[in-house]
Amino acid sequence: MADPNTRLPLTRQSVLEAHELIKPHIHFTPVLTNRTIDQIASTPQTVEALEGTEWEGKEPAKPKVRLWFKCENLQRVGAFKVRGAFHALKRLEEEEGRKVGKDGKEVGFQEGGWRQKGVVTHSSGNHAQALALAAREFAIPAHIVMPTISTPSKIAATKGYGAHVRFSGSTSVEREAMVEEVVRETGAKLVPPYDHPDIIAGQGTMGLELQEQVRALQREGGGEEKGEEKGKGLNAIIAPCGGGGMLSGIALSCSSTGILVFGAEPSFEGADDGRRGFEQGSRIESVKSLTIADGLRTPVGKIPWSIIYERGLVKDMFSVGEEQIKMAMRLVFERLKVVVEPSACVGLAVVLFNERFRGLVEREGGEEGWDLGIVFSGGNVGLERIGKLFE
Amino acid sequence: MADPNTRLPLTRQSVLEAHELIKPHIHFTPVLTNRTIDQIASTPQTVEALEGTEWEGKEPAKPKVRLWFKCENLQRVGAFKVRGAFHALKRLEEEEGRKVGKDGKEVGFQEGGWRQKGVVTHSSGNHAQALALAAREFAIPAHIVMPTISTPSKIAATKGYGAHVRFSGSTSVEREAMVEEVVRETGAKLVPPYDHPDIIAGQGTMGLELQEQVRALQREGGGEEKGEEKGKGLNAIIAPCGGGGMLSGIALSCSSTGILVFGAEPSFEGADDGRRGFEQGSRIESVKSLTIADGLRTPVGKIPWSIIYERGLVKDMFSVGEEQIKMAMRLVFERLKVVVEPSACVGLAVVLFNERFRGLVEREGGEEGWDLGIVFSGGNVGLERIGKLFE
Repeated sequence: MADPNTRLPLTRQSVLEAHELIKPHIHFTPVLTNRTIDQIASTPQTVEALEGTEWEGKEPAKPKVRLWFKCENLQRVGAFKVRGAFHALKRLEEEEGRKVGKDGKEVGFQEGGWRQKGVVTHSSGNHAQALALAAREFAIPAHIVMPTISTPSKIAATKGYGAHVRFSGSTSVEREAMVEEVVRETGAKLVPPYDHPDIIAGQGTMGLELQEQVRALQREGGGEEKGEEKGKGLNAIIAPCGGGGMLSGIALSCSSTGILVFGAEPSFEGADDGRRGFEQGSRIESVKSLTIADGLRTPVGKIPWSIIYERGLVKDMFSVGEEQIKMAMRLVFERLKVVVEPSACVGLAVVLFNERFRGLVEREGGEEGWDLGIVFSGGNVGLERIGKLFE
Repeated sequence: MADPNTRLPLTRQSVLEAHELIKPHIHFTPVLTNRTIDQIASTPQTVEALEGTEWEGKEPAKPKVRLWFKCENLQRVGAFKVRGAFHALKRLEEEEGRKVGKDGKEVGFQEGGWRQKGVVTHSSGNHAQALALAAREFAIPAHIVMPTISTPSKIAATKGYGAHVRFSGSTSVEREAMVEEVVRETGAKLVPPYDHPDIIAGQGTMGLELQEQVRALQREGGGEEKGEEKGKGLNAIIAPCGGGGMLSGIALSCSSTGILVFGAEPSFEGADDGRRGFEQGSRIESVKSLTIADGLRTPVGKIPWSIIYERGLVKDMFSVGEEQIKMAMRLVFERLKVVVEPSACVGLAVVLFNERFRGLVEREGGEEGWDLGIVFSGGNVGLERIGKLFE
C-alpha cells in the first residue's frame, strides 16, 4: 500500500472520495432512535451510582440528549471494518494493479502483481472477516493472522469467506511477527487493521452517512419530537476507540462541520490507553487487556493518534467499566432489538454512566440538549458468549 | 367489543380498513433479506438430518427460496400485537365511547363508559404489553391477567406501561376465570388476545405491508438478485400460529391475491394443535405445552380457525422441534443481527428443517423458486433467557 509518510495529510475531502469508491460494495446502514433510551440517558444518575467515585456527594449531572444510533452491526460481515477493507483494495487497484494500453485504457492486470500474491493482515476478528470478504469480491487470495483466543464464530466466519487463517499469540509483537512470516512466504501485501490512511479514510465514511441521515430524519418529522429546529443535524458523535482507525476517520468526516467528536474506551486492565494518552500528552504504545470489549484491546495506532490528538480533531476521550458496558448492551438488546457486540456498546455506556461526559453534555447542551450520534460498530457476538456474559 | 356473532365475515377489505385506522399508532417495520440464509435454505438437508424420520433413505428436497423477513420484532412493544390492540380500541371508540352533539360533532365521551372502566385481557406476554401501551395512549385503565410463569421481562414491561397486573394459573380455564373476576370487580371491557374479528383484522395489516414492501424492494433492484421478474411480489407467506389471530389476519390480507399462506407451530408436547386439527378435520380445543416458543402455547381460537381451516384461507400447517427452533434463532442472531424471541423463529425453522414443507416448495416453486415472506412476530426475550437456551 501507499507509503503513509509521503502522503498528503487526510482531510474531510479524503473521506468523501473514499465514500464514492466504496459505495457499491457496502450497505447503507440504518440509523435507529428510541424514546425510552433517550429518557433513560436524560435522567440524572442516582446518588448511589456515584458513591465511591470522585462525584460522590455532588449533585448528579442533568444532561438532555436525543440519541441517533448508526447501525454498523447491520453492515456487511456485521461490522464497519468492510469500509476500510474495500477502500484499501480499491486504492491498491488504482496504485499498482493496472496495466494500461497505449490509448490509456485498462487492458488487464500485471502478472505476478499483488492480485496473484494476495493480501495479508492480523486482526482479532472483524477486520479479518472484512478483508476476507473484500478479497473474495476482488478474486484475490487473503491470508489472515488471528490470535488463538479469537471468538470461535469470528474464526469460522473468516474461514467461511475463503481466507487462509494462521494463528498467533495475542500481543501486537507476536501478531506482527507472524504477518512478516506470511509476507516472506507469499509476497502478499499487508493491509493493516487501522494504522494506515486508506483504512482511516474508509472507516470515516460512516461519519458522512450518519451526518446526512440525521438531518434527513429530522426533516422528515422526527425533528418535531427530536428537537425544535428541523434538519439542524448533530451536535456531536461518540465512537468506540481501539486502534483508532474508525474514531480518527469519523473525526476527519466531522472536521469543519462544527460537530464535536468523542472517543469511548473500556477502562478494564488499562484498555483506556487513548484517555490516558490524552492525560499524559503522548500516545501509549502498548496495552494488554482482556476487556469484554474484545475489539478495543489494541493501543491507538500512530496515524490515528496524529489525527485524534495531535491535530486536535477528537475533543476528549472517556472510559467505562465492564459492568457498565454490559448494562448498555442489555438496553440495546431489550429495547432496540438489535444484536451488538460488547465493543459496540461502549459509546452508549459512556453516555449513560460516565459522569464527566454527562456533566459536559449538561454544560454544553444546556436547556435544548444535544443531538448525539452513537456508533454501533459491530454485531459479531455468538449466542454462547451472550449466555456467559449474562448468566 | 362488538359481538362477533352479528358481524359480517371478515375480508381483505376489513384488513385494509383496519390499516387506515391504526397507521398513526404503529411502526412501519422493515423487511430484511440475507443472501447467506437464502443459500442455506436453498441447500438440501443432509441425509443424516433425515435419519429416523419418514424421509429416511429418500433424496432430500431441493427447494429454491428467496426469503423476505418482516421484522415485527422491531414493532412498538417489540411485537405485532400492538396492531390488534390499537385496532380494538379504535373500534371500541367508534362503537361506544362517543358523545355526539346536535350538529353531529363529537363533544366528549360518555361518563361511566368503557373509558372510565378500562379494558382487561389475559396474555402470556406480548398482547399484555400491547394492550397496556394502547390503553395508556387512549388514557384509559388496563387490567392484565398474566400467568405466574410469564417471562419476568414481559411482566416488568407490562407494569412499565402503567397497567394493573393480576396473576393466574397458566391454563386457559384459570386465566379466563381471573378475567371474569376482574370484569365483575371493575366493569372493564374484555379485549381478547386473538379470538375476535377486530384483533384478527388488526394483526392482518402486517400482511398488507409485507406484500407491498416486497414488491417495492424487488422493483428497487433487489429484484435483480432476488428473481427475474421485477416487482412480481411474493409467492407465499409463512407465519407462526398460537391462537391464530395473526395467521388468520395474514390469510385474509392475502385472499384473492394468489399468495399462499402457511402456518408454523412447535411440535413439543402437542403445541402443534393447528396441524393436528388439519389432520383430524376439526379444531383441537386445548393444549398444555411448555414449548420454548412461549407465544405459541395456546390452542387456535374459534374465529381464527373458521378463517384458517373452514374458509380454507390457510393452505397447510407445519411443525418443528425445539432444537430446530433454536437453530433458526441462532441463524437470525448471528446473520441478521436482530433480536427475535423463540416464537418468532418457528416459520424460518419450518423452511430450513421441515422436509414436507421443503418438498412442497420444490414441487410448486420449481426452477425459478419461491419468494417467501417470513414473519418475525416478536423480539421480547431477556438476555438471561438467551443464556439459558444456548448454554
